[in-house]
Amino acid sequence: MKHHESILKGKYPAKAHCAKVAAYLKQTIKDDSPARIYLQGQKTRMIEDNDEPQPFRQRRHFFYLSGCNLPDCHLVYDIPTASLTLFIPPLDPSSVIWSGLPLLPDQALHKYDVDHVCTSSELYDYLAPTRKPGSSAPLTFATQSHLPIDQYEQSYFVPFNLNALHNAIDECRVTKDEYEVAMLRKANEVTTAAHIAVLKNLKHKHNERELEAVFTERRIALGCTEQAYHGIFGSGHNAATLHYVANNQHLQGRWNLLVDAAAEYECYCADVTRTMPLNGKFNEESEGIYRIVQKMQQECLGMLKAAVTWEDVHVKAHEVAIEGLLDLGVLKGDKKDIFDSKTSVAFFPHGLGHYLGMDTHDTGGHPDYEDKDKVFQYLRVRGTLPEGSVITVEPGVYFCRFIIEPYLKDDKHRGFIDEKMLEKYWDVGGVRIEGKSYPNIWAFTC
Amino acid sequence: MKHHESILKGKYPAKAHCAKVAAYLKQTIKDDSPARIYLQGQKTRMIEDNDEPQPFRQRRHFFYLSGCNLPDCHLVYDIPTASLTLFIPPLDPSSVIWSGLPLLPDQALHKYDVDHVCTSSELYDYLAPTRKPGSSAPLTFATQSHLPIDQYEQSYFVPFNLNALHNAIDECRVTKDEYEVAMLRKANEVTTAAHIAVLKNLKHKHNERELEAVFTERRIALGCTEQAYHGIFGSGHNAATLHYVANNQHLQGRWNLLVDAAAEYECYCADVTRTMPLNGKFNEESEGIYRIVQKMQQECLGMLKAAVTWEDVHVKAHEVAIEGLLDLGVLKGDKKDIFDSKTSVAFFPHGLGHYLGMDTHDTGGHPDYEDKDKVFQYLRVRGTLPEGSVITVEPGVYFCRFIIEPYLKDDKHRGFIDEKMLEKYWDVGGVRIEGKSYPNIWAFTC
Repeated sequence: MKHHESILKGKYPAKAHCAKVAAYLKQTIKDDSPARIYLQGQKTRMIEDNDEPQPFRQRRHFFYLSGCNLPDCHLVYDIPTASLTLFIPPLDPSSVIWSGLPLLPDQALHKYDVDHVCTSSELYDYLAPTRKPGSSAPLTFATQSHLPIDQYEQSYFVPFNLNALHNAIDECRVTKDEYEVAMLRKANEVTTAAHIAVLKNLKHKHNERELEAVFTERRIALGCTEQAYHGIFGSGHNAATLHYVANNQHLQGRWNLLVDAAAEYECYCADVTRTMPLNGKFNEESEGIYRIVQKMQQECLGMLKAAVTWEDVHVKAHEVAIEGLLDLGVLKGDKKDIFDSKTSVAFFPHGLGHYLGMDTHDTGGHPDYEDKDKVFQYLRVRGTLPEGSVITVEPGVYFCRFIIEPYLKDDKHRGFIDEKMLEKYWDVGGVRIEGKSYPNIWAFTC
Repeated sequence: MKHHESILKGKYPAKAHCAKVAAYLKQTIKDDSPARIYLQGQKTRMIEDNDEPQPFRQRRHFFYLSGCNLPDCHLVYDIPTASLTLFIPPLDPSSVIWSGLPLLPDQALHKYDVDHVCTSSELYDYLAPTRKPGSSAPLTFATQSHLPIDQYEQSYFVPFNLNALHNAIDECRVTKDEYEVAMLRKANEVTTAAHIAVLKNLKHKHNERELEAVFTERRIALGCTEQAYHGIFGSGHNAATLHYVANNQHLQGRWNLLVDAAAEYECYCADVTRTMPLNGKFNEESEGIYRIVQKMQQECLGMLKAAVTWEDVHVKAHEVAIEGLLDLGVLKGDKKDIFDSKTSVAFFPHGLGHYLGMDTHDTGGHPDYEDKDKVFQYLRVRGTLPEGSVITVEPGVYFCRFIIEPYLKDDKHRGFIDEKMLEKYWDVGGVRIEGKSYPNIWAFTC
């Protein structure tokens, strides 16, 4: 059995996460802070004007402190006693006829890393068991989006500083424990198998959506009912549209396919991109760009260690891109001048990567989208990377007319770009490489 | 080219739907009714605490009157001039860099059956072009869920009787025109191909989810990115859980698989169920039940014609079920006595079917879930079926312990059920057959 599979035989470490968050709160809020945490999980919500529920997605903060992926639950963590209580929906006999038996409290206690399981009908008595009329409700850490919504419920506790708990969980989620890494590895393993299935089917399919279908088949068959994010299956020029989502164009006459798609496993996300030659072998132009992006990724991966400054890694990616595009003759001039004038942003307009966890773009990155420096504006993580954080490295080089053409008209940049040489590269579309869980494309195609 | 494909080359008949709804309103609301209709389409909504939008599902009423499946749109239909104006989001240059060019007004005018296309930034001026300060805003048909939400917007018109338009569209949607039938046929065609792929893979797969994966692969590859409803892939006893959704159990040792899954095509839903022998051939018990359900379906389909009373068709299904279960010896006693005591509800607990259209359980059925008569309580359509309506016929016979065991303890029913004979049938799970777009199971397996 693989190492991560054996870790996943254990319980999701909800109580360790509660303790981590409580310690963070204690450190940041000195006095008079509440003695308990309350969170509400995602409720069952119906599709508008319809009798089917919306697709369920557990609130990430709730999952982090409970490991429970069911709708309509609540949790209370008592900080002094380090005691975690999960509230699950009570059994509804009329629903059993249609939906079968739900998870029962005994089963939930066995499944989750919690001290007590109650039904949600017991929540209010639990929240204020000894409350006398006129006495004030206990102060409680809670977050805005998880607040009980009616007045009746609100009367059972006074929420404390609605930002504190939310921020604490955001920050605690940045560094992952062994169990979380195993979850990510599992999501990655399924994602890898799905990417490889796409690679093997490239020559047999005629439309982007058929390859999305192949990917989705593997993801579901291997146990991941949810995708981590809306997948991108962009052929030809579509690969240059960073948020391409249509996935419905014919492949004929196009050179490459960019696949940015991944599985989610029990709320944990993978994030993998590969760019593939549609006929099995890159042409000269595509190979040139691919090798640049591959080098960007390898050099950046080589820099990763605790306390590295993410901006430095991002700058390295730009430097390698500039060198590579100079070699190909797409750029011309002095390396440093090009970097300083930020011309490489025309070809690599997005940030190098982001924290990865329960959200694909995970919490705690502190981006600054108002940054006037275009090199750093879209960087989703700023500053140093703490030990134990998980980050994606996803460099890319794109030939997107909407992005590049304004540079060709700008005196600051036009001198650095060889327009005639550029003509050869528009059909490359875009190349992005993200994730190192499976071998690079050469192992399969070249 | 197939007939429905050639129909779908034309535009979705949005203006005909507007006229139909306006005529309905005129007939039901005699005087002083507004001269225009306003609807707002579904907005882009973000996933909570996340930077990705929620999966988009257009509001059905909006699609019915526009044929437009884009987010963040509005429509105004002027009743006296029969003029339809669609408002689409304006071009956002910063978004083009990331997402490419959106649909432009000229393209929208060409694509949709509308008279004018404006951008949503022009909406307020359009709604009250000549409005003077202090004068009252024009009276407008609108629906509660489609109302502009802020006060600024609301000041632009006075909504009229918020139920009238909603009900009118609900009722108009019951009868389908040729274009809508073609949409349903297209969804059905894709669904059929996906069901057949599942049939062909039964012997090669080991878990319910692998067969859901096969189904999903075909659906997406054939162009339907959305499923009509959460699919049911229930093997063995799981087939007896009417709303089974886990789809994650091993198939080993189980007799049958019930597949209730379908594609959505541009907001129009298919709905097909087949029950399949996992090893390629039904055993005696499963075949016995399958033949009963097949006869239920055939006899009920034979009764369908304009103005038939749906309760009569549903009763026929119960009668055929009772006869069949008497033949097998699961039931005993007099046919009429069994029907009158409603014992057959233990085996066929749900309604025979529902209108089918933009919602799987489409509008206008007027169910009465408070009906004390258990035979009819869950019937989703009551009364006579108008010409041009589309309805599903989905009889089933189930062996669900949660449902049947209370009957075995009830003096009113226990005498009609042969408990010993019943023992042979628990492992059949459940059989349901729905939709006639592809041959029955025998054509593939027996």
